[in-house]
Amino acid sequence: MALIVQKYGGTSVGDLERIERVADRVKATRDAGNDVVVVLSAMGGETDRLLELARQVSDRPARRELDVLLATGEQVSIALLCMSLARKGCAARSFTGGQARIRTDTSHTKARIQGIDVDALRSALGESQVAVVAGFQGVDEAGNITTLGRGGSDTTAVALAAALEAEECQIYTDVDGVYTSDPRVVPDARRLETITFEEMLELASLGARVLQIRAVEFASKYKVKLRVLSSFEEGEGTLITSEDATMEQPLISGVAYNQDEAKLTVKGVPDRPGIAAALLGPIAEANIDVDMIVQNVSEDATTDVTFTVHRSDYEAAFELLQRHARDMNAREVTGDDRIAKISLVGVGMRSHAGIASRMFATLAAESINIQMISTSEIKISVVVDEKYLELGVRALHAAFGLSEGPVLDEAIKS
Amino acid sequence: MALIVQKYGGTSVGDLERIERVADRVKATRDAGNDVVVVLSAMGGETDRLLELARQVSDRPARRELDVLLATGEQVSIALLCMSLARKGCAARSFTGGQARIRTDTSHTKARIQGIDVDALRSALGESQVAVVAGFQGVDEAGNITTLGRGGSDTTAVALAAALEAEECQIYTDVDGVYTSDPRVVPDARRLETITFEEMLELASLGARVLQIRAVEFASKYKVKLRVLSSFEEGEGTLITSEDATMEQPLISGVAYNQDEAKLTVKGVPDRPGIAAALLGPIAEANIDVDMIVQNVSEDATTDVTFTVHRSDYEAAFELLQRHARDMNAREVTGDDRIAKISLVGVGMRSHAGIASRMFATLAAESINIQMISTSEIKISVVVDEKYLELGVRALHAAFGLSEGPVLDEAIKS
Repeated sequence: MALIVQKYGGTSVGDLERIERVADRVKATRDAGNDVVVVLSAMGGETDRLLELARQVSDRPARRELDVLLATGEQVSIALLCMSLARKGCAARSFTGGQARIRTDTSHTKARIQGIDVDALRSALGESQVAVVAGFQGVDEAGNITTLGRGGSDTTAVALAAALEAEECQIYTDVDGVYTSDPRVVPDARRLETITFEEMLELASLGARVLQIRAVEFASKYKVKLRVLSSFEEGEGTLITSEDATMEQPLISGVAYNQDEAKLTVKGVPDRPGIAAALLGPIAEANIDVDMIVQNVSEDATTDVTFTVHRSDYEAAFELLQRHARDMNAREVTGDDRIAKISLVGVGMRSHAGIASRMFATLAAESINIQMISTSEIKISVVVDEKYLELGVRALHAAFGLSEGPVLDEAIKS
Repeated sequence: MALIVQKYGGTSVGDLERIERVADRVKATRDAGNDVVVVLSAMGGETDRLLELARQVSDRPARRELDVLLATGEQVSIALLCMSLARKGCAARSFTGGQARIRTDTSHTKARIQGIDVDALRSALGESQVAVVAGFQGVDEAGNITTLGRGGSDTTAVALAAALEAEECQIYTDVDGVYTSDPRVVPDARRLETITFEEMLELASLGARVLQIRAVEFASKYKVKLRVLSSFEEGEGTLITSEDATMEQPLISGVAYNQDEAKLTVKGVPDRPGIAAALLGPIAEANIDVDMIVQNVSEDATTDVTFTVHRSDYEAAFELLQRHARDMNAREVTGDDRIAKISLVGVGMRSHAGIASRMFATLAAESINIQMISTSEIKISVVVDEKYLELGVRALHAAFGLSEGPVLDEAIKS
């Protein structure tokens, strides 16, 4: 008898009919002879409704109370699913984060799980009950309700799978797996049967938001077998594993993109050590996250530094830089919020310098100008004018033959 | 510095604007130098919304899960009030039933409070915080979430006031106190400044539903000073105290009525011991509550037994009696669901047989036929045709001079 952790997101429990369908699926897994632990998000839209209530009460609601408020969303879901399971003759028991003894630190609205005492869950499983756990929430040492931040239910599921040493952690969502690119942009994008944790991390952070990044990191760290599946269709989904489990090593896993960023350039700053830090200091202090940072080799005594921020932070960052421009002896601050980032991801590219040049050539052939380039071990990202987003993604998807099956070392070499 | 417990019902926290007003009132009480513990119900309509969700999932939802579901209603209220208080510069801290350590038995959906460990609340008060507690809920020994049943927030407030030895327990509602009768029926009904627990119990059970009966019993038992006030208007409300605190003993406190009942008569049953029990046995087994029971002295070997049930149980009770009529050798079963019960309530009437005759004479003068009579220590109830409800209530209210001020022994004797 295997122990399976299944997590269903907000869309999957979006209304009562869908909760019925989740109950059918849970019962089928149970009837197949498995122990089942279910982790649920709040019903779709509920968290936003609660946040809006809070916003109307206060511009800056006390974060402890925000957690008390938001935690009710998942509590409603778990109660309703248990009722549905009971009606179908499947014994079930709900657990709030506190009842499941998910201990976190006290960082309200973005708490981190510190440990899980699985005795209560094991005891329910021992009584042949399905354990239905509220995702996204826990309690701190003092018994305060905490939440893990948006998408935290994935983290709850992976953490429970790790603590219970589950056979598999299945993340049910509204897509049937991880694709070589966004099917809305690339119609012949192909579902991947497997992908490595590292690739998944890059894809997730690049906007292919199937899974929460922290959940993937967690699964990687604790070697939890993670599978992304659709809660609306049958299918095997995509299995996310550690690299060595992948027999056939694909060179490129997918083409991701991101349209949420804006770029800022500080021109003509003195080219001396510490200038990047001085420039980014005020940005960091304002709690604005910076993604890509590029500084070119300078031609005279000054240099240009370009970086990207989330679009919602664009105005604030622009103002900040202008205010500090004089202190830094900068010539000018410019910006552009109509950019897109396109990234090629694949563990196989580590040993292939040729990938980058093929990528740039493909874009050049479509007359797409590259504004910024940034690379990591397993990805290459470029920033282009956002009007070229679809064209660029499709061209790269085709150039690397992603719709035809796994791109293996052999294929690319020939 | 006094410790005040304030309870606000669903109407008082019905929307965000009203929650703001509650926050103002709480802050004013705090600013006046008091320690304040607030108990909240769910926002008006929320409990019904949650119940409807449960009903759609299952005809008979698991009661443990129903409690998990319903408890979210109050949790939302306490979080929002704390946010509002914080914004007004009044430090506050929310407590779910479990966090306030309100321990109950395991009777889901109708749990009884077994004890409260007030350390956590005292600690918040010690840090100059207002403690905002979710009403209606607690946890059992094993940590399961329980609810106290409809109106249980009143009970939570009184129990907390008792455990904390509060100066006063203030119940804020949508009426500004307890009246000598329903102002919708008797326009010159007068607000009572004080009333005894016993009178309040009779008034509450007779349909003057200002307070939950269990809360009044609890307050009486633990000598908690209870005050009913309006959350929408200023005013002293009505203070509910033990009898000896009332200096001037009013003869009659009020005229209550109830239009929720139906009467059933079993005619011509053999007049022998045990017949009432045999007749009511099947009714009790069907979980139908019986209110008044009247059996007249019989003239021959048979007798008639009449009793009242809630109107919603009328059909079921009627059918049951007809099915059992033959076993009991009864001649006939008749019924009437168009009745009303009118009651005169007052601790002063104990020693005054004259009250009953004056009551009956008043009704006779209006040509109102009395169908049933039932009396207790401090009340006399009569059942009449429901079309005479308003007429009867107004006539009695006038006959006992209730709109003119406390009716004292002296006044009635003269």
